[in-house]
Amino acid sequence: MTVVAEIETLDSAPGGIASPFVATLVRLVRAQDAYGVWEGTSDVELLKPFIVTKEQRKALPLMADPDPDVLARLELFYNAVSLSIERETGLVASPMMKMHHEGFGRVLLTTGRLVVLSRHLRDVHRFGFDSIDKLASEGGKLVAAGVEAITAYPDVARA
Amino acid sequence: MTVVAEIETLDSAPGGIASPFVATLVRLVRAQDAYGVWEGTSDVELLKPFIVTKEQRKALPLMADPDPDVLARLELFYNAVSLSIERETGLVASPMMKMHHEGFGRVLLTTGRLVVLSRHLRDVHRFGFDSIDKLASEGGKLVAAGVEAITAYPDVARA
Repeated sequence: MTVVAEIETLDSAPGGIASPFVATLVRLVRAQDAYGVWEGTSDVELLKPFIVTKEQRKALPLMADPDPDVLARLELFYNAVSLSIERETGLVASPMMKMHHEGFGRVLLTTGRLVVLSRHLRDVHRFGFDSIDKLASEGGKLVAAGVEAITAYPDVARA
Repeated sequence: MTVVAEIETLDSAPGGIASPFVATLVRLVRAQDAYGVWEGTSDVELLKPFIVTKEQRKALPLMADPDPDVLARLELFYNAVSLSIERETGLVASPMMKMHHEGFGRVLLTTGRLVVLSRHLRDVHRFGFDSIDKLASEGGKLVAAGVEAITAYPDVARA
């Protein structure tokens, strides 16, 4: 029963799946699929590794170095933010991520002379979102903040 | 005779050694000296690893990964730029360097929302300057460019 319930949640969940941010992320994930093995895989299924429930998060140990896959997802996430900002503003926001191998670090998105987004990251082992809706809203928030910064300082973003 | 000439050059060279940028760099190098082994070492001597003549540069192979020492010097150099900008403007310019292990990468200095300096780096194996004067002038140029950016966009730098 739980399994059925879970599948139903995943299938019915997504208001978020239709969001432009999530669509961009899915595109980036599919771009990794050089051999076409995910062709038959649904978007919801593809995004599953980005979904980490509160319980799963607690269960993830912070001791060892984060899984390279989690770092790859982190990069994809911020690349999707970047691309979404570009789609809305027409300006390329180039991401620069520097991670310490123990799972903390920093990400910067810059456009021209403007710092569009600056985030300190930690406990990256546990990177993930409660649901696709949450993924959509968190991603959307970062995009909105970036677009707002560019709108506030258009000349700096073009400098 | 060549040895004597070289020592003389090093000792007599430095108009540059008195420059504020080089003084900052020397301070940062000395800050690494936790065991006091460089206490008797002159500033000129300490800066020797930063000096790479044209002939030496050509002789350095680009094949293997750059020496960790060269990466450490690169970080010290940009930290000195950072600190010098801070001294002149009162604003902290935080450096972020991301290097591929093969010797190329990027360095960003940001202050508030302003990108104070952005450089793509390559062939880092050969990082170094023809002379202390050249080190002083190259460092000074970057500092001046950073200060100029902050002066042009003071509100962004404070945002």
